[in-house]
Amino acid sequence: MNGAESLARTLVAAGIDTVFANPGTSEMHFVAALDRVPGLRCVLGLAETVVTGCADGYGRVAGKPAATLLHCGPGLANGISNLHNARRAFTPIVNVVGDHATWHRPHDPPLAADTEALARTVSRWVRTAMDAASVGTRAVEAVQASLAPPGGIATLVLPADCAWDEGAQPAKPLAPPARGRVAPQAIESVARTLALREPTVLMLSGAALGEAGLHHAHRIAHATGARLFGPTQLPYIARGRGRPPVDRVPYVVDAALEALAGTRHLVLAGAKAPVAFFGYPGKPSEMWPKDCEVLELARVEEDVVAALEALADAVGAPRDPPLGSQPLSQPATGAFRPDAFAQTFATLIPENAIVAEDAVTSGRGLFPPTWGAAPHHWMQVTGGSIGYALPSATGAAVAAPSRKVICLQADGGAMYSLQSLWTQAREKLDVVNVIFANRRYAILQGELAAVGATPGPASNELFDLSRPDLDWVKLAGGMGVEAARVDSLERFADVFRAACARRGPFVIEFAI
Amino acid sequence: MNGAESLARTLVAAGIDTVFANPGTSEMHFVAALDRVPGLRCVLGLAETVVTGCADGYGRVAGKPAATLLHCGPGLANGISNLHNARRAFTPIVNVVGDHATWHRPHDPPLAADTEALARTVSRWVRTAMDAASVGTRAVEAVQASLAPPGGIATLVLPADCAWDEGAQPAKPLAPPARGRVAPQAIESVARTLALREPTVLMLSGAALGEAGLHHAHRIAHATGARLFGPTQLPYIARGRGRPPVDRVPYVVDAALEALAGTRHLVLAGAKAPVAFFGYPGKPSEMWPKDCEVLELARVEEDVVAALEALADAVGAPRDPPLGSQPLSQPATGAFRPDAFAQTFATLIPENAIVAEDAVTSGRGLFPPTWGAAPHHWMQVTGGSIGYALPSATGAAVAAPSRKVICLQADGGAMYSLQSLWTQAREKLDVVNVIFANRRYAILQGELAAVGATPGPASNELFDLSRPDLDWVKLAGGMGVEAARVDSLERFADVFRAACARRGPFVIEFAI
Repeated sequence: MNGAESLARTLVAAGIDTVFANPGTSEMHFVAALDRVPGLRCVLGLAETVVTGCADGYGRVAGKPAATLLHCGPGLANGISNLHNARRAFTPIVNVVGDHATWHRPHDPPLAADTEALARTVSRWVRTAMDAASVGTRAVEAVQASLAPPGGIATLVLPADCAWDEGAQPAKPLAPPARGRVAPQAIESVARTLALREPTVLMLSGAALGEAGLHHAHRIAHATGARLFGPTQLPYIARGRGRPPVDRVPYVVDAALEALAGTRHLVLAGAKAPVAFFGYPGKPSEMWPKDCEVLELARVEEDVVAALEALADAVGAPRDPPLGSQPLSQPATGAFRPDAFAQTFATLIPENAIVAEDAVTSGRGLFPPTWGAAPHHWMQVTGGSIGYALPSATGAAVAAPSRKVICLQADGGAMYSLQSLWTQAREKLDVVNVIFANRRYAILQGELAAVGATPGPASNELFDLSRPDLDWVKLAGGMGVEAARVDSLERFADVFRAACARRGPFVIEFAI
Repeated sequence: MNGAESLARTLVAAGIDTVFANPGTSEMHFVAALDRVPGLRCVLGLAETVVTGCADGYGRVAGKPAATLLHCGPGLANGISNLHNARRAFTPIVNVVGDHATWHRPHDPPLAADTEALARTVSRWVRTAMDAASVGTRAVEAVQASLAPPGGIATLVLPADCAWDEGAQPAKPLAPPARGRVAPQAIESVARTLALREPTVLMLSGAALGEAGLHHAHRIAHATGARLFGPTQLPYIARGRGRPPVDRVPYVVDAALEALAGTRHLVLAGAKAPVAFFGYPGKPSEMWPKDCEVLELARVEEDVVAALEALADAVGAPRDPPLGSQPLSQPATGAFRPDAFAQTFATLIPENAIVAEDAVTSGRGLFPPTWGAAPHHWMQVTGGSIGYALPSATGAAVAAPSRKVICLQADGGAMYSLQSLWTQAREKLDVVNVIFANRRYAILQGELAAVGATPGPASNELFDLSRPDLDWVKLAGGMGVEAARVDSLERFADVFRAACARRGPFVIEFAI
């Protein structure tokens, strides 16, 4: 057996069944092995940012890694920005990057690049196989590294000769690494703080945003008056009717400072203490009050759900406190306004849908009304690399073929990864893509104003996406995806409902 | 004056007049400075691979650097693959990458990444400004580093506070670094070898591929019988009627070995000794005969043109040897065949055009007939990162507004950087884009066969770009570019001529 086949068989044995790929010449033996080894679904992306964005969406939804297949250093480089988002979400991914044969590489052929250096910028684990015999072992190490809590990116570089040489064998899967338990003393310490009944915020992320984590967090909030927050960018949250309420830390620094003003204790449950997305002149990096104590209940890699349950019990919380009223908002009409869209969209979310969001300026205000929507999951661009929602939604639909996936993508970001639509068409994925076509980098116009500058010729050139207008109906059609343009909320609601009622991908360009 | 303005003024003073940009929040002060400082044309790319590919094409044609403006680590990462091509072509580029404020970065906000590590994989010079006062000095160092022969990528990381803090001043431009002269002894040594009249190949690259370099190389060939070769991927060559003949080293290893068989002396003039693009089982990396002596006339950073002239004089070559007959090929008809297209295309190249080529399998055979075409320049995907031709042609058109630019791009690569078309439309650039739509990764089908494998389900999924077919007329239309589809050589010739007769961008999808 050659190294490539040992890699494929090791991945299958370890429970990996999906490979998002954009292969090149140095990966031909691995592709040939994929032809021989049953059990791996191969999904092609026409640009690597699609491949890695798919793997991120897949991993967040499936809770297990997909593999990627990328071509040499430059191919990996094209996928790094969406791997950066995945890194910030702790998404498990096994990145396989083909490379030159070990004996060819020293000749510095044109495609040679520092693949490991590129990989290290986004990976928790990077290894280059040095011979065929060790490929299986390296592969099982990569799977383990991707799964070690809280999850992350493991990159295995596969030189071509390590793929084609014989003498390899698959490696046996290992037991999935377990999460560490939080020490009882740490839980008691937080319980004592909560008993003070001073203004407290419980910051939730990672596993704490799942159904069970939110349930116990809500018990704590109910019993102690603590407020629940998630990060500005949510990796994957259970949301909607029957799920407890939680706020996000606002993106705008002043709004975040106001939201957390008066907090005396900030308790971290799988979350980082919130810092500003960007630094601004005269504004702080840390968004909690200076006199606020920061306590860690559980690190993101620990068993945060068990810690929340234990804490809820420790503060004497009831098992099932009431959720309060979760009013469904009313659909609005007329032209796009962020809040009106948010109200409307909340009424339209299909039951058990997955929403992938990278809506930037159009998306602010989207979150609050979704508490009363049908139960769903919501995931966001965690690392700030725009163009996240299209490929992430694509990967989510591969992971969950029975669920409707909604992609909310601003047009600026959509142009980073529009190739995702072709994969949706190829795989007949059930994704409704909403493109917010404001035809400008609106966030940058806001940021320029925030630095006190008046727009001039350069900023006009650099923020304006009109001249010419992008036509998303044509772009989608060019990749085999049906599309429609809407310019009112009522028309959006009609088209969105119709798109959800059928299967397969659809694009709605909302001209706003 | 703040750091951002000192950067803009330093760049202008150093002769930089073009910025290809995809900015983000951390670059707002630089954008505001661009609004205040006259002399910099800002060209927006809707994805960073467009931005860096434009800068590569611009630099090859203009012979001086454009600046880029990229946003943090992930923005830079999106541009690395085309920077990799630029690195292999020794294209001068001043890469400006905004980043978090120095005091904000330690908080590890979501967009924080190892920007310097990413930059180092493609740059010859990387520095991060540490305060506003030093930005001007760093900028002029970056310009010098990009221009130091043979040219390369200098990356200046600009933390936001170094842009917005006051107390900065522009730095004065420095004299452009000169090329080192080749020692007379080295030239005499090569002349003695040539005097043996044994089979000799003169490998030309870099400046040797310009008009003067080719002229003197041809004198040497005429006087000594040496054969002239350029690398498989040409960075920028003067070609067509009135220019001396030169072959390229074939891409396919066996063909390259055959082309160079019997060579006793390989003389390098600004070129590397040719190695295989990829390693293959049982095939060598080095493509010259084992008993062939490799001599270096001039390194790529040396004054290779002067060395060629001195060598030509040393071997007693006449000043103006005849070029031989340069027959113009005849247009062919019928369906696409690579050789027939090459014959046809050579008849159509407009006088003084620039051709950017990333045609992969469709492009093999394109080169030979162009010797008899109208005078033009030809540039290729030097680093193997596909998706090169669309943005490179775009940047070339910015650099040379009076010249017609032809983009020859295979469809697989075209999907990596199709956003380039929008920039062409925005800037009304005079580019005729030919997309070779074979609807598959044909090169990979060939490579799979070369490793002896039979295509199966995985390779079928991963090499086939149909299901659905890409519609380049719609895709181009979605970005405001007129387009037409052709399926015969005669129809191609008609549409191509018409596209060249008008100004502005046009896309021809050649269904092949």
